[in-house]
Amino acid sequence: MTDDALPSWNEGATKQAILDFVARATTPGADFVKVADRIAAFDNDGTLWSEQPLPPQFDFVFRRWGEEVKSDPSLAAIQPYKALVEHDMSFFAGVAAQDPATIETLLKAFSRSWTGSTPEQFDAEVRVWLETVKQPKFGVPYIELIYKPMLELIEYLKANEFRVFVCSGGGRDFMRTFAEEAWGIYKENVIGTAADYRYIDGQIIRAEEGLGGLDIGPGKPEHVFAQTGRLPVFAGGNADVDIELLESATFAIIVEHNDDAREFAYTSGAEKSFARAAELGWTVVSVKDDWNTVFGHIERV
Amino acid sequence: MTDDALPSWNEGATKQAILDFVARATTPGADFVKVADRIAAFDNDGTLWSEQPLPPQFDFVFRRWGEEVKSDPSLAAIQPYKALVEHDMSFFAGVAAQDPATIETLLKAFSRSWTGSTPEQFDAEVRVWLETVKQPKFGVPYIELIYKPMLELIEYLKANEFRVFVCSGGGRDFMRTFAEEAWGIYKENVIGTAADYRYIDGQIIRAEEGLGGLDIGPGKPEHVFAQTGRLPVFAGGNADVDIELLESATFAIIVEHNDDAREFAYTSGAEKSFARAAELGWTVVSVKDDWNTVFGHIERV
Repeated sequence: MTDDALPSWNEGATKQAILDFVARATTPGADFVKVADRIAAFDNDGTLWSEQPLPPQFDFVFRRWGEEVKSDPSLAAIQPYKALVEHDMSFFAGVAAQDPATIETLLKAFSRSWTGSTPEQFDAEVRVWLETVKQPKFGVPYIELIYKPMLELIEYLKANEFRVFVCSGGGRDFMRTFAEEAWGIYKENVIGTAADYRYIDGQIIRAEEGLGGLDIGPGKPEHVFAQTGRLPVFAGGNADVDIELLESATFAIIVEHNDDAREFAYTSGAEKSFARAAELGWTVVSVKDDWNTVFGHIERV
Repeated sequence: MTDDALPSWNEGATKQAILDFVARATTPGADFVKVADRIAAFDNDGTLWSEQPLPPQFDFVFRRWGEEVKSDPSLAAIQPYKALVEHDMSFFAGVAAQDPATIETLLKAFSRSWTGSTPEQFDAEVRVWLETVKQPKFGVPYIELIYKPMLELIEYLKANEFRVFVCSGGGRDFMRTFAEEAWGIYKENVIGTAADYRYIDGQIIRAEEGLGGLDIGPGKPEHVFAQTGRLPVFAGGNADVDIELLESATFAIIVEHNDDAREFAYTSGAEKSFARAAELGWTVVSVKDDWNTVFGHIERV
């Protein structure tokens, strides 16, 4: 144990801005935040783990859809299966662009895959994927590509009596499968895009419909409010779909992916968010300059 | 401080059943429940506070609708305002009976009252009501009619590393106004019937639609699963609308209102649930016999 709660963060303005904000929020004075209000919310893809070349959940879903096309080749004629078969990844960019037609098509495909399944069945599928599939660039399971500095930050916030939530466009139930082990936060602190479930004959069964809309853009503060009754005090993100979440917080950090040697370097899908960061004074976290370690697990007490 | 965590509960089979279950759930052995799974869920009306002659939120809502009829007398010709003006309380029994038409009518009226409002405006309205309106039988604010034994039970479960949720057919945001002070649980642990909210121009605004259906009957385990990713280990209720919640738990208690001298005596709306309690071996909590004190606040550490 060291006195430094954020050992994977280099000393400098970014780390200091985080430490200063938390100190002010927890010390009586003008910026004090009472314990009940201490909500932190983090995006997942690109904020807590690598999202290149594709957000990991896409890999999970694409494998499933690939199997479905094998069983029923007629699917290859319709989206999103067509894009998959033709390796046309541009189709999926419609998600980050918040294009309603793309999103509708994907949601329909999710329904086709999982309507009628139980949470236990879905969990088991995700676990097999987590344990067997490797990320193409690094050759390790995706779960190994969680940012150690962010895990330290989550623990640091918890130690300062923040309740930490993950709020991702990704699937709520997908993330809940590994949240407790990987992030050290309970399932109930995971907010995401969710299917509706029905309670039928003593069993929770996945319904066809979604619950509460997509957890991107304005959907992020909407979901945080629905889950917690508050907007966040501390928020973290990395992309245009996080803008509203970051705006809704008192203090915001935004991860800049600029380290191709250790992770990835890209700005695509984050152009507007960095313009907004400059306007609103969000703290920019440079993977290259602010993190001395990128990936890794931490020991929790 | 006494060694007895449940001082308002009389010694006897009921108290012992609760203590025994929690001891088994927290002691290594066949019935051990790992900490992550320790979810408790309680209904509110009739389980945590008095619901006679009407659930308190009805009083709040009726006053608001009364004012709306004053401003627009034409409303008196349509439901639910008509029932209100004519003191026809039988109309509202449709809620407990889970009648879709009655529920639809009420939801529409809720929308008419609060669509476009902010959480802060709604909170302020609830607070005025909490502080000024008195329950007719006891002549005290409704918030004084919370069952002290249940507050002790919540603290006891928390001390045993349960995360305690309230899961009520009542309004999520109505309950969240007083949850932290009254129950000692955070807003995010309050599940209820909810409106959808939109994030517009940096502000959370109540939308016309509901989010996720009514939190009664099968809606209760559905909402607990959506909020927490789990079904409850420990559940408490008192009425037919709680049956599915209680069925979904490992251990269930059901409150029997049989003490007209200190509270109310009634079985209406709970007939099926007591039949189910006998079948499934739920622990029946007799207000008359099991509680030495009915109402009151507790000191929290």
